[in-house]
Amino acid sequence: MTGTTEHAVTLQDLRVGQVFETGSVVIGRDDIVAFAASYDPQPMHLDDVAARDTLFGGLVASGWHVAALTTRLVVDARPFGATPMIGAEIERLRFRRPVRPGTRLTVRLTVEAFEESRRPDTGYARIKVETLDADTGEVLMVQGWKMLLPVGDGA
Amino acid sequence: MTGTTEHAVTLQDLRVGQVFETGSVVIGRDDIVAFAASYDPQPMHLDDVAARDTLFGGLVASGWHVAALTTRLVVDARPFGATPMIGAEIERLRFRRPVRPGTRLTVRLTVEAFEESRRPDTGYARIKVETLDADTGEVLMVQGWKMLLPVGDGA
Repeated sequence: MTGTTEHAVTLQDLRVGQVFETGSVVIGRDDIVAFAASYDPQPMHLDDVAARDTLFGGLVASGWHVAALTTRLVVDARPFGATPMIGAEIERLRFRRPVRPGTRLTVRLTVEAFEESRRPDTGYARIKVETLDADTGEVLMVQGWKMLLPVGDGA
Repeated sequence: MTGTTEHAVTLQDLRVGQVFETGSVVIGRDDIVAFAASYDPQPMHLDDVAARDTLFGGLVASGWHVAALTTRLVVDARPFGATPMIGAEIERLRFRRPVRPGTRLTVRLTVEAFEESRRPDTGYARIKVETLDADTGEVLMVQGWKMLLPVGDGA
């Protein structure tokens, strides 16, 4: 690690129980509709009036939109520094609560476990990823990321 | 079901082993970069030159982009007719192969199991969702969807 180059985080830099928190972003009505028009064009995501007649009683974001914004918040927070975020697997992604326009999202990452990979110079970290309503603290979405990370020099 | 209204598929209309196939879509270079700029701004998704120095050796789509296009293909195929697609949970999403610009994606759904929900008028279907390279047949991404569906009148 030098003064001018961002540190590339390795598995040896992490410990079980370690928590990272990200910044926040408001998910707006127009963004919800635009994402849905491209990727999940269903009434509950596209139109306020049509959404009233659905299970949700009003417009809600596509779960994939919330997942994509979750990734954006984590990428921007750079918890692994210069190490690229490479996901091998998502374990059990649960949509806990509908996400309505105007919700401010933030993300909490918790390191849960480590696993070996086939290559000796890499390994996996299991990380719990919770997407929260930043104002109420409610968990909106929770998932487990199995991430590929380099093994440090000291391993 | 009438001649003018699309049938709303219920759990009783499905059987274990049933397969649905969707249309296809080509994931283009500009789309990969635009999605990544919004949701996953990392070098392997943003820039051909910078991507060469990554594990992937060239530009690859964000896994979340592939997941979002998977949903779009399924929504357009309307396997459940007028019944909205409401996901409760994603079980183990695995990124099997990197998705490069120009890949034609298609999706295969396989009904795997049914589960009761808390409400007697709804239940869950477990559905394997495979995103394939439409030209080679290779599986690029696989995941399990736990979907909320209505119970039919005859149940």
